[in-house]
Amino acid sequence: MLELAFQADRRGREPVYRQLQHHLLDLVQSRRLAPGERLPASRELAHSLGLSRNTVNQAYQALVDEGVLRSHVGQGTFVVGAATDPAEASPGVRSFAWQGLTARRVRAIAQPRGVAPSGPLEIDFRAGRVDLPSLPMASLKRAYARALSQVGDLAEAIDPRGWGPLREVIARSLLTRGITCGPDEVVVVNGAQHALDLLARTLVDPGDTVALEQPGYFGAAAAFSASEAHLVGIGVDAEGLRVDELARVLRARRVKLLYTTPAVQSPTGTALSESRRRALLDLADAYQLPIVEDDYDGELRYGGPPVPALKNLDRAGQVVYVGTFSKALFAGLRMGYVAAPPPLLRRLVRSRWAADFSSDVVTQAALADLLASGSLERHVRRVRRLYARRRDALLAALRELMPVGTAWVRPAGGSTVWLRLPDDADAEAVHAAAVAAGIGYGRGESFALADGPAAPEAERHLLISFARVSAEKMEAGVAALADCVRAAQRAPRRRAS
Amino acid sequence: MLELAFQADRRGREPVYRQLQHHLLDLVQSRRLAPGERLPASRELAHSLGLSRNTVNQAYQALVDEGVLRSHVGQGTFVVGAATDPAEASPGVRSFAWQGLTARRVRAIAQPRGVAPSGPLEIDFRAGRVDLPSLPMASLKRAYARALSQVGDLAEAIDPRGWGPLREVIARSLLTRGITCGPDEVVVVNGAQHALDLLARTLVDPGDTVALEQPGYFGAAAAFSASEAHLVGIGVDAEGLRVDELARVLRARRVKLLYTTPAVQSPTGTALSESRRRALLDLADAYQLPIVEDDYDGELRYGGPPVPALKNLDRAGQVVYVGTFSKALFAGLRMGYVAAPPPLLRRLVRSRWAADFSSDVVTQAALADLLASGSLERHVRRVRRLYARRRDALLAALRELMPVGTAWVRPAGGSTVWLRLPDDADAEAVHAAAVAAGIGYGRGESFALADGPAAPEAERHLLISFARVSAEKMEAGVAALADCVRAAQRAPRRRAS
Repeated sequence: MLELAFQADRRGREPVYRQLQHHLLDLVQSRRLAPGERLPASRELAHSLGLSRNTVNQAYQALVDEGVLRSHVGQGTFVVGAATDPAEASPGVRSFAWQGLTARRVRAIAQPRGVAPSGPLEIDFRAGRVDLPSLPMASLKRAYARALSQVGDLAEAIDPRGWGPLREVIARSLLTRGITCGPDEVVVVNGAQHALDLLARTLVDPGDTVALEQPGYFGAAAAFSASEAHLVGIGVDAEGLRVDELARVLRARRVKLLYTTPAVQSPTGTALSESRRRALLDLADAYQLPIVEDDYDGELRYGGPPVPALKNLDRAGQVVYVGTFSKALFAGLRMGYVAAPPPLLRRLVRSRWAADFSSDVVTQAALADLLASGSLERHVRRVRRLYARRRDALLAALRELMPVGTAWVRPAGGSTVWLRLPDDADAEAVHAAAVAAGIGYGRGESFALADGPAAPEAERHLLISFARVSAEKMEAGVAALADCVRAAQRAPRRRAS
Repeated sequence: MLELAFQADRRGREPVYRQLQHHLLDLVQSRRLAPGERLPASRELAHSLGLSRNTVNQAYQALVDEGVLRSHVGQGTFVVGAATDPAEASPGVRSFAWQGLTARRVRAIAQPRGVAPSGPLEIDFRAGRVDLPSLPMASLKRAYARALSQVGDLAEAIDPRGWGPLREVIARSLLTRGITCGPDEVVVVNGAQHALDLLARTLVDPGDTVALEQPGYFGAAAAFSASEAHLVGIGVDAEGLRVDELARVLRARRVKLLYTTPAVQSPTGTALSESRRRALLDLADAYQLPIVEDDYDGELRYGGPPVPALKNLDRAGQVVYVGTFSKALFAGLRMGYVAAPPPLLRRLVRSRWAADFSSDVVTQAALADLLASGSLERHVRRVRRLYARRRDALLAALRELMPVGTAWVRPAGGSTVWLRLPDDADAEAVHAAAVAAGIGYGRGESFALADGPAAPEAERHLLISFARVSAEKMEAGVAALADCVRAAQRAPRRRAS
């Protein structure tokens, strides 16, 4: 008789019969119970495992219902199993040649070169993170519970534009960014990355040129390259995007669209100046250039009146606005939106329908609730104050602790500082020391196209987020990071091959 | 002084200051409060509206924080407003020529021709719907609450393959479909449509040929055409996909992949026979043809042992399995998955990352909980019994009530019947009568490529779902539908131009 060692966890959430059922499934899956094999009679098994016979019968019956076991009266219970011939189904004979079948679009994807460490860290300076303890969890739980209570109305409300009530509150909230638009100019999507990808597939044919900031956000490079765009980098300086450089590019070639982050340039943190904004729109008007404005951190502005979105100045309807809830809530929620002029929006919605029909209605309804009740707005206001203190603590600690030659610009908004290493500190060595010390940050090379002109400079930078490190712990965190930099200065060429 | 008619709803969920804040926002948005305009002093406004001064101040402050109003000490509170010059921002001057900028992929999308009515109906035979009252709402609410309690661990668990614990329970559940795979062969996506679209972008270059069943599922036609595939229809009969027809096509041209629904052919409801399954895999092996198996209704099998998925017979690793939670739960959830051989999976995950990074972690965690606790499995078992009764009731009512010449095949699984109208009943006239009577169903023409050889036959069909109509009400529903058919027989050429 087969060995059926099984220990029920009686304090566990799963009923014991389910635990046994899963245990048996595992045995079948791993082929310790082979197809055709006979299981012990339920009375025997119950006795040997110290379970009730009913428990064993329930587990057997569930597996029979699922087609994993079959039962013959008077004969017993047998494993149906998976493939007809287990030998044939073993991974070893999996011979199909997928390699030659990959679409060009997959190979075209520009992937970031430097990846931040995953998992928990001693000191978490990684970008794209938020302060988790601040999250309005009670409101969020209530909002989800209310959304689920409406599921009868929602369950099949599959609208590629998004759920109407959510589009309404988003449209209203956009007024705080200086954007006047109605719910019919808003499409709810699964995060800003989804927005960029959908815009790419709606506007970009293979070989089209897309202009984007360099250094710039790696997600945009990925989305547009996945549509086989030719990517052209436009430099940034203390006033944001170099509009004069863009003008030179536009004179030389046709550009399908410009991707830009005017509120808080990703990654440098600078804001596009007022004069540049006007120059950019004049230029875009002259060349009939669509502008995709990614306002990912536009709500986080410190020590000054909020600067309206670029789209606020858009007279011709050529600015497409991309918003996200990743910063106001958290990135794992995967919710964002596009505010677009109606002619583009219709095409975008058509693409979106073919791509995934619509966004999840439960999450949409929960978000609509959170927006309508004002919880989200209050949360953003609280977080803005919190991050302002953390930014100040980070800047103070950097001034005090970083070695001479380290450089950075005080960001007027967002949640990150773009930090330049001293010339004699090797970035790879800093990274190795930081990993060893349990420090995580964004690696500069992720924010530049490989072999692009901005790459060498970007590689000398770290993207430091202050969102997750409390003001009290900031000094210790920066001190530890400064130690990594100093260690890399002492051994300047300790580069991993 | 401006008119500020405002009536607080004191029983509403929103605090009164929020209501006032939104009212003011609406006035700014609609330009009844123009940029630069001065608002009444809070004392005045509080008096005139019968509110406390504190309430008015809170509303003002919130709008100042949002940048909608600005406040100057000693001068008052003013509207900042949206565009600098309201005349310039009016919709009238939106002149940008988006028309010329659309990517070829958008224009290529094959859209279904007949759309089922939306909104509530007297009699709901629409496909893609589930029985809402059966949904395990208590378990679902608990699962979401538990997921939100884990948000600290989840919030940034952005994995393009999906959340690990969910991939584990999905892999385990696939054993019930006869599929042995590990969590690393599973990718969680946002519904089956997303799966098909991601497979298209991973495998299909413009001009590649994709074979699919005709009549067949419109979502597949949309996904593959959105990658500019050339679509070739393969006929279906009582045994499912015509493998002989596929063989002829393969001899004539290179085909990039086959899309098929072997468990319950969409829309005809037939299951691919055992001999055809083996013939299909032999053929696919000979031509190195990848097969995309959409098992959307594989769990719903009545009156017989479950038939394993086609992937169960896959020896070479050339079958890609697509699963969904739209039927086990509801379509608005937008959750599905792909089980794919590792070489394909790696490429798929790369595409997926560029497309939208990952699926929502809260929904993933809630689903993982629902699967691990056995709630979903119990629910599917209950629904299977319920739908079996409804299928029997539908078939009995059809036999009894439909006019002579109406034809259908008893489906062994799924939740729909593909009903052929009598030759003398005009399908457009049936549809018009059904809309007038508040009856909804899937329109046959949606399930055939426009101008394809299957289109004329498909147009003579209705797709009738029995998922949502109780056995008790089935007879009345079918009687009403039969009346529509008879009316269309009496006036056979009453076709809308």
